Amino acid sequence: MSAVFLLSCPDSQGIVSATTTWIAEHGGNIIHAEQHVDTGADGELIFFQRIEFDDAGFDVDRDAIVEAFTPVSDAFDMQVAIRFTDVATPMAIMASRQPHCLYDLLTRWRSGELNADLRVVVSNHPDHAGICEHMGIPYVHLPVTKETKPEQEQAVLATLAEHGVDLVVMARYMQILSNDFIAARPLQVINIHHSFLPAFIGANPYRQAHDRGVKLIGATAHYATADLDEGPIIEQDTFRVSHRDNVAQLTMKGRDLETVVLARAVKAHLEHRVLVAGNKTIVFS
Amino acid sequence: MSAVFLLSCPDSQGIVSATTTWIAEHGGNIIHAEQHVDTGADGELIFFQRIEFDDAGFDVDRDAIVEAFTPVSDAFDMQVAIRFTDVATPMAIMASRQPHCLYDLLTRWRSGELNADLRVVVSNHPDHAGICEHMGIPYVHLPVTKETKPEQEQAVLATLAEHGVDLVVMARYMQILSNDFIAARPLQVINIHHSFLPAFIGANPYRQAHDRGVKLIGATAHYATADLDEGPIIEQDTFRVSHRDNVAQLTMKGRDLETVVLARAVKAHLEHRVLVAGNKTIVFS
Amino acid sequence: MSAVFLLSCPDSQGIVSATTTWIAEHGGNIIHAEQHVDTGADGELIFFQRIEFDDAGFDVDRDAIVEAFTPVSDAFDMQVAIRFTDVATPMAIMASRQPHCLYDLLTRWRSGELNADLRVVVSNHPDHAGICEHMGIPYVHLPVTKETKPEQEQAVLATLAEHGVDLVVMARYMQILSNDFIAARPLQVINIHHSFLPAFIGANPYRQAHDRGVKLIGATAHYATADLDEGPIIEQDTFRVSHRDNVAQLTMKGRDLETVVLARAVKAHLEHRVLVAGNKTIVFS
Amino acid sequence: MSAVFLLSCPDSQGIVSATTTWIAEHGGNIIHAEQHVDTGADGELIFFQRIEFDDAGFDVDRDAIVEAFTPVSDAFDMQVAIRFTDVATPMAIMASRQPHCLYDLLTRWRSGELNADLRVVVSNHPDHAGICEHMGIPYVHLPVTKETKPEQEQAVLATLAEHGVDLVVMARYMQILSNDFIAARPLQVINIHHSFLPAFIGANPYRQAHDRGVKLIGATAHYATADLDEGPIIEQDTFRVSHRDNVAQLTMKGRDLETVVLARAVKAHLEHRVLVAGNKTIVFS
Repeated sequence: MSAVFLLSCPDSQGIVSATTTWIAEHGGNIIHAEQHVDTGADGELIFFQRIEFDDAGFDVDRDAIVEAFTPVSDAFDMQVAIRFTDVATPMAIMASRQPHCLYDLLTRWRSGELNADLRVVVSNHPDHAGICEHMGIPYVHLPVTKETKPEQEQAVLATLAEHGVDLVVMARYMQILSNDFIAARPLQVINIHHSFLPAFIGANPYRQAHDRGVKLIGATAHYATADLDEGPIIEQDTFRVSHRDNVAQLTMKGRDLETVVLARAVKAHLEHRVLVAGNKTIVFS
Repeated sequence: MSAVFLLSCPDSQGIVSATTTWIAEHGGNIIHAEQHVDTGADGELIFFQRIEFDDAGFDVDRDAIVEAFTPVSDAFDMQVAIRFTDVATPMAIMASRQPHCLYDLLTRWRSGELNADLRVVVSNHPDHAGICEHMGIPYVHLPVTKETKPEQEQAVLATLAEHGVDLVVMARYMQILSNDFIAARPLQVINIHHSFLPAFIGANPYRQAHDRGVKLIGATAHYATADLDEGPIIEQDTFRVSHRDNVAQLTMKGRDLETVVLARAVKAHLEHRVLVAGNKTIVFS
Repeated sequence: MSAVFLLSCPDSQGIVSATTTWIAEHGGNIIHAEQHVDTGADGELIFFQRIEFDDAGFDVDRDAIVEAFTPVSDAFDMQVAIRFTDVATPMAIMASRQPHCLYDLLTRWRSGELNADLRVVVSNHPDHAGICEHMGIPYVHLPVTKETKPEQEQAVLATLAEHGVDLVVMARYMQILSNDFIAARPLQVINIHHSFLPAFIGANPYRQAHDRGVKLIGATAHYATADLDEGPIIEQDTFRVSHRDNVAQLTMKGRDLETVVLARAVKAHLEHRVLVAGNKTIVFS
Repeated sequence: MSAVFLLSCPDSQGIVSATTTWIAEHGGNIIHAEQHVDTGADGELIFFQRIEFDDAGFDVDRDAIVEAFTPVSDAFDMQVAIRFTDVATPMAIMASRQPHCLYDLLTRWRSGELNADLRVVVSNHPDHAGICEHMGIPYVHLPVTKETKPEQEQAVLATLAEHGVDLVVMARYMQILSNDFIAARPLQVINIHHSFLPAFIGANPYRQAHDRGVKLIGATAHYATADLDEGPIIEQDTFRVSHRDNVAQLTMKGRDLETVVLARAVKAHLEHRVLVAGNKTIVFS
């Protein structure tokens, strides 16, 4: 049982002391504390902090913490988010036909590796109904065509709302989300792109990689924003390939990258280790 | 003492048998043989082969091999290059101020790791004269300005010709070579670009990488062609970074990548393991 | 449709020519051919070769190839194995409680990534009956105790025989196989050990790794032999960890390594790219 | 200009608050602060912390800090070390014949990458006198035989003392140091071992690796202790090899690993990011 403070504010002297002292005075025992000072777009310094503390002996009620912390947060003009590690984040997974990322997340979730409350799987194809039934997770099939896209997206958003979802993981969901969809779920949608961004933006990155003759392929997990493939990157990795690999083989080798890169990003989010600074992320360890 | 055949031709049946039989009949003992079939721009299949054989008991004189091999090479319409592993490739290194790639190549060369006959180091700065003198390698200082660039490039080409150089390694030489220079040395110039191409083409790739918030930095060694940073890639690699790394730290961490990626590419070339297929390379193991 | 020759013999001149010429004369079009010369225990040179050829126009019947090839194989004292890529290898998976390797192999198999005919899953626990039923694979539950081990192993062997299995994959099967079991299935059992062998042989490798304070954890896939964790290594990889990782976290991070290392080894075996030389493997690309 | 506190003490509540508040009250602006709680041999929890702060406006003189900090350090029974980033650590390098680690460290030092005051290079061979003279570093040649080893080690220790050295880097120094030598320089000697420890302890690790048929080779940088190759590991890494690599090729490929792993460990030490906990290290980022 621990609480996590995610803080950001203009940099100044005494922030670390102020926050850690406030927690200690109220009976919290600090387990981890990391901070980072980043330079904003205008050159100003911005302070980011993640503090995790054992709240077994904490003398403030959970729903009163934000208010009680006001003297500190006001003094430094802080943005504050508070999470609790014994509260699993309500999560949805969206998938199309390809199973690898979906199955991987399901397996991790079932083994207890993800601190998520998996509430629903949404897909524009019926393919994965069986495995979801087997695992006891509602499967909502919402097919989509060019014509029905607006309605389908509304149906998806309604499904997410109905299930009280706070995180949406696009496990190789092959539809481009509209700006309206993204705007409804700001920094709540994690996507996996099958290239080392910003290389090979857009369609068919493995074909692009093959045509360019690269010696490594990559995968990138990022928050979805209105600009396609331009959102804040959470995690990336690469894998060695050679002239022997045709597009089909690159695609197959890439799957292992996609699953593990997406899984790492989702875990970082679920463990409340990710803060967003402009178009970048700070991922604490 | 071994000979290396580098062959390419339209794909057809019986090539492997024909080449290996010809070598065996003349007393060559095959040590390595690798082949690859690539798809050309027009969809036609192209066969590439590298055969290395011990030529101790070979019954054809070295300078008569090409002619003697004509019955086979004509039959399959082959392009043929023949190298000998006991003949070190005459090499030049070009550098600017930064020492890391240059020093690394010098150290490898001196330890016998590179099968190169290092004949000259050319630089637009005087900085490395001392180390080259220490190692007994001619150092040619050819400063350059925007105005003097054509003359300076002619002087560089003259220096390379004077020293009989067959391979030019750009060890972080910070001048963009003109198309005339490249045309004079086709597929004889290896460059190191400090990004994972095709991401971050052009100037200041570490700044570009920082601005995009990537989680890995990269380096790419490629043959220099008229299109900047677009030549056939020989080797690439990446290294993990984080939000903590500012541009200066990315630059420092990138140096280790640049040196090792460039060294691997140079070694592959010197060991006659690289064949070029269109804008891609085949790097045999 | 292609055929694969896996050959080994004492090294001598003319082998490559003899084998490739024989194939060409019978109408086979060589797709890949790789060879390697290894030094045996007594210092003698041993030649290994893998040749894959399109057999669409081959003029020898499949079941007559070994005999027809006798003139070549006898001349060089060869050991010969012949495989066909359109014949999927009959495979069994053995698992205990942990699902990650099993689920990963099932997902790959179902997506067509593995050239295997998955016939049965055997486990000493009932846990995975549901997923196997969902996927339509027979699940044989054979519980084991110290007392019943000999009988249980006989039952496992009988199950494997009944299903005509040629490859047994130990997907974190947590029982040590007896020498009798191994002797019944020589070089047919692939095991995954959760360390970078030969470091941390035996029980609890993640605890051993934590106690030693290593900065990387590893996984090793190998053929099971009578000597525990001493069989020929097929594939290994490592992953970065830090002082922050306790044994539970090493275990969790290690799972991703185990699944991918085991999958790569199984694929290499199923694609007939592995030859065994003494206690080592040659894994062709 | 910044100061670094390296602290360790039995874990208890309020430590982070106490240390950061003390620094803030004296005018220090905290740049980085990381902590870690480790479990000691007896199961007790030990708290480790690294705090780096800008000391431009700090109101305590540098040589009075330890005393001034006593109220905090006594209250928590702390071990305290204080470093300053504008004070370069006096360093010696020891080498034998092989140049790669030595040259690499010299190049990094000269480019300003290492926060070290390189005072002397000591070797049992004369080989590197020229390069050291070229770089203006004293080179002390102290040959050694089995008979003269005790005297030679005394001469080495005298040289280190004479130059006021605080860190000794064994850049592939091929002599085993006696326990007396190690005892004279506790946790001040960093060694590079050319394997992934604890695999392949002792002599000829590349031969051992070849004999075992591993698919990766490794390198390990560690503090030298009385038990050979058993000291606290600072950094490790691995590199992929194959059946094609004989012992000579493993040795050559391993050099790149050795240089980069040793360099990373030396940098971590020089940046005061390493704390030792029993036989393990905590390496802060």
